[in-house]
Amino acid sequence: MGNQTIYFKKQPRIVATSSIAGPKECEGIIGRYVETALMDDMFGESTYEKAECKMLSHVIHGAISNAGFNRDEVDMIVSGDLLNQIISSSFAARDFSVPFLGVYGACSTMAESLAVAAAFIDGGFCKRIVAATGSHFASAERQYRYPLELGCTRPPQAQWTVTGAGGALVADKGDGIRITGATLGKVVDYGVTDVNNMGAAMAPAAADTILAHFRGTKEDLDSYDLIVTGDLGALGSRILKDLTWEKGLDISKNHVDCGEIIYNVIEDEFQGGSGAGCSAVVLNSYLHAKMMSGGLKKILFVATGALLSPVSSGQGESIPCIAHAVVLER
Amino acid sequence: MGNQTIYFKKQPRIVATSSIAGPKECEGIIGRYVETALMDDMFGESTYEKAECKMLSHVIHGAISNAGFNRDEVDMIVSGDLLNQIISSSFAARDFSVPFLGVYGACSTMAESLAVAAAFIDGGFCKRIVAATGSHFASAERQYRYPLELGCTRPPQAQWTVTGAGGALVADKGDGIRITGATLGKVVDYGVTDVNNMGAAMAPAAADTILAHFRGTKEDLDSYDLIVTGDLGALGSRILKDLTWEKGLDISKNHVDCGEIIYNVIEDEFQGGSGAGCSAVVLNSYLHAKMMSGGLKKILFVATGALLSPVSSGQGESIPCIAHAVVLER
Repeated sequence: MGNQTIYFKKQPRIVATSSIAGPKECEGIIGRYVETALMDDMFGESTYEKAECKMLSHVIHGAISNAGFNRDEVDMIVSGDLLNQIISSSFAARDFSVPFLGVYGACSTMAESLAVAAAFIDGGFCKRIVAATGSHFASAERQYRYPLELGCTRPPQAQWTVTGAGGALVADKGDGIRITGATLGKVVDYGVTDVNNMGAAMAPAAADTILAHFRGTKEDLDSYDLIVTGDLGALGSRILKDLTWEKGLDISKNHVDCGEIIYNVIEDEFQGGSGAGCSAVVLNSYLHAKMMSGGLKKILFVATGALLSPVSSGQGESIPCIAHAVVLER
Repeated sequence: MGNQTIYFKKQPRIVATSSIAGPKECEGIIGRYVETALMDDMFGESTYEKAECKMLSHVIHGAISNAGFNRDEVDMIVSGDLLNQIISSSFAARDFSVPFLGVYGACSTMAESLAVAAAFIDGGFCKRIVAATGSHFASAERQYRYPLELGCTRPPQAQWTVTGAGGALVADKGDGIRITGATLGKVVDYGVTDVNNMGAAMAPAAADTILAHFRGTKEDLDSYDLIVTGDLGALGSRILKDLTWEKGLDISKNHVDCGEIIYNVIEDEFQGGSGAGCSAVVLNSYLHAKMMSGGLKKILFVATGALLSPVSSGQGESIPCIAHAVVLER
């Protein structure tokens, strides 16, 4: 394309959101903004995976009802998650008699699903779509690394997968946050092989998409109140700022990372939060509130994903990453 | 939506395809139509997963070059596969400096990726998109069931995951097969828990989407030369015909299943082929050739997917399934 950015002329809008987060997550800044704060991260279920699925189902239902719609007025659910075969999304979609489009972009899923939803609405194919994703610390740890029960020590470059989910109802009309464009990312791999250092692996993908956005749109960096990345964490964010600065784009004044801000106390979560739920919860609670109240007018939401699997890492592969960006305006 | 079917006014078209299949697959009908027939299902790689990824990369490249384009003229790759975290697709996309949209619909991926590609082109966001998917018998067996090396006996209701991949270049103009509509499926679960009986699990989803298509479009069944399902196999196809007949739609004259026709000799593959590569190879070789030569004028391509994971089955869940349909016309 030369230009990776697409524009949505009819400006589909996020007319309602819904969010849920675990007890640890609610100690931080999102505790004051999240719609449902869990007291127990099992959410009344017998397994972590079922708890994750229930959170996703909860926010899909929440986004629909917060927008004042019934399920049968929704044209599609676009969702994905980190679990193998995106079972949280597929099983959540089973609860709704609504066409389902499964997507996979690891932790970039919130931006990917918003971009796909906006394209289907702007193209005139649908009127109302729920875009949603989530993650659970315990299910992610046992799938990607080790079961928590083993008590493995985490290295200082590690991040903490967020237990939470977020959903947005995107509609062709109504009051809300307008989705005016999207920059779809390429797969970028700088050869990082440390599965505990997702921030370093994903930062080049975030830089690639952000640079492509500003190169393609010729927009002024200052026109954005915030450039929000998904879950680079503290270390990854520093790398991103270096990489973009090297290419002549100094984002240090505008940049914030959901993973860096989600936890209050830097303790065993080290570099901050990660997981598809990280940017999903921050966007659909805190950032949504700030945009609706007028505190933020225009943001570039750049969710970042590491596209590895334990199998690919075990076979000696490095970690390919991707970042998708959507332009949100109030 | 009430109506699950969307229409593509500009009629994006498949201007070129590419396909590859393993030695066992090439013994059957597609052997005469497939672009690349493998002599060895390792494809020169050291692992099954890497072979699967290489096949996918091969058909993405093939679809682009068969259409006479360069990589930098392609706006997006839409792809997914069966492996955890869709690593075949993500790693294949790493070889191309092209924006990547990862999708997951298990074996329904060929129809899902075509529908998404058509929507992005019809909406005016992109001009040229590759839609592709694939699967590998050995990587699927060891992920979903048992490693081949264990020599486990397969039950008679089992299917054989196709080793192969298919890709289509969808463009806004040019000579080819027109994509005129799509019916996006809902997640359907009739409570089947036998992970060796995918045909029985997926047939209700196929029936749901096919019935939704004809209910929504009011089209005449006879206007279709074929109703092609993805990988229901022999048993699943019989169930599908029963389920649609019960609802007053007798598809027995028009229906064919890619899984039922792909293998020549019914031996240890029992009910026929399955896997994302099954419908991808049949569509992008045999069906494409038949449509281009005028033997088939209009088909409803209904790829079917079982959205289970070994974890969900292990936790006692049944198998949720989905089917997406695209209308292809010459």
